[in-house]
Amino acid sequence: MRYAVPMDMDDSLRKLSAELAHFVDERDWDQFHNPKNLAMALAVEAGELLEHFQWLSEVEAEALSPSTREEVAMEMADVLMFLLRLADRLHVDLIESAGKKLKLNRQKYPVEKARGRATKYDKL
Amino acid sequence: MRYAVPMDMDDSLRKLSAELAHFVDERDWDQFHNPKNLAMALAVEAGELLEHFQWLSEVEAEALSPSTREEVAMEMADVLMFLLRLADRLHVDLIESAGKKLKLNRQKYPVEKARGRATKYDKL
Amino acid sequence: MRYAVPMDMDDSLRKLSAELAHFVDERDWDQFHNPKNLAMALAVEAGELLEHFQWLSEVEAEALSPSTREEVAMEMADVLMFLLRLADRLHVDLIESAGKKLKLNRQKYPVEKARGRATKYDKL
Amino acid sequence: MRYAVPMDMDDSLRKLSAELAHFVDERDWDQFHNPKNLAMALAVEAGELLEHFQWLSEVEAEALSPSTREEVAMEMADVLMFLLRLADRLHVDLIESAGKKLKLNRQKYPVEKARGRATKYDKL
Repeated sequence: MRYAVPMDMDDSLRKLSAELAHFVDERDWDQFHNPKNLAMALAVEAGELLEHFQWLSEVEAEALSPSTREEVAMEMADVLMFLLRLADRLHVDLIESAGKKLKLNRQKYPVEKARGRATKYDKL
Repeated sequence: MRYAVPMDMDDSLRKLSAELAHFVDERDWDQFHNPKNLAMALAVEAGELLEHFQWLSEVEAEALSPSTREEVAMEMADVLMFLLRLADRLHVDLIESAGKKLKLNRQKYPVEKARGRATKYDKL
Repeated sequence: MRYAVPMDMDDSLRKLSAELAHFVDERDWDQFHNPKNLAMALAVEAGELLEHFQWLSEVEAEALSPSTREEVAMEMADVLMFLLRLADRLHVDLIESAGKKLKLNRQKYPVEKARGRATKYDKL
Repeated sequence: MRYAVPMDMDDSLRKLSAELAHFVDERDWDQFHNPKNLAMALAVEAGELLEHFQWLSEVEAEALSPSTREEVAMEMADVLMFLLRLADRLHVDLIESAGKKLKLNRQKYPVEKARGRATKYDKL
């Protein structure tokens, strides 16, 4: 098996990532999980997530029925799982990358300029 | 502040989610972060991730330059962050949902039938 | 009915656009077809199109079975139809816009620099 | 040159498709324009289109500034152009396919059942 054993198995994301690697390994699906295909699969799931919201008003989207909410949660799970697979294949540490990006965003969107505005940083 | 303090702050995903909620709260961006908009933002980031791979061969996509790999990691971070925001707004536990979906996938794709095949479950 | 009658009904795109407007009008769906929702619906259909290709090798994607090719054609039709709806709602002339964008692309990608290269214009 | 000359050059879509084929041919880009890559490129452009609407309210999305509307039109042009390229590569007649899909939609969404409702056909 080609996956390194994650060190901290108490961590929820690492644990899920290891379970996924095992699931894929058992099915010999690693041959399909190259980065290009995984990026596509993630976009496909993002589209399926989007589908649930396309005709809803903002108010309706805030008040999903329990069954729709569950369907939405399952699409979100798919997005997360392909993201973890891609991270695995590219040896990207997602949490570290998110920390880095959040730091960049703090610089691009200083509180005093960005407060209450959805304007993109290059137009702030 | 409307976000409940996550209990286990040693967990990497919970910690990131709390940091994000704080980042959004400081900027008063919660007004834009309704579920419909967040699902759109997630799909937009999935598209930006995809863009890095669109003209690459499978072989090239396996061997990204360090700078491209870093750009890809930053897009992946964006996807993760909007996914966490959406989970926050919909009160979805991402890890629990992924565990549930993975269990469903084990049933939909039994090892003996799915091994080495990328066929969708309804055509297996 | 709020749609202007297109002038040249021999033109295939104008004809389709008028048929679509009629289809929507009969069902009183214009209330859902605001630009934001239509942009989402278009992205959803682009994701469904993508799904057909996600696990295929380049070679397999060039040699679709007749039934898959037909499914792909139906997804492409969906993309076109939401694009026409959006153009209708935003009063955008798609053909004129494409002509303009193609002219811009000729400038951004001069033949002598771009020949045989998939590099983005800002890195050419 | 591998593209058949379209017959009816008065037709706006055929004319654009031929101009695009020429643009690609001059740059020797056909090697990148396989169906898999084109489906990805189309999804990327759909994401860029979506980006313009992600933080807008429905009302704001109906009243785009002239400059935003022009940017949106250029993204719509990109979607159309990759759709035409894909149609070219897969030998799909877009107008014929859309006519076929519209006919199917008339059956799936009969006026009396679908009027004023955004419900998906399988839940009507």
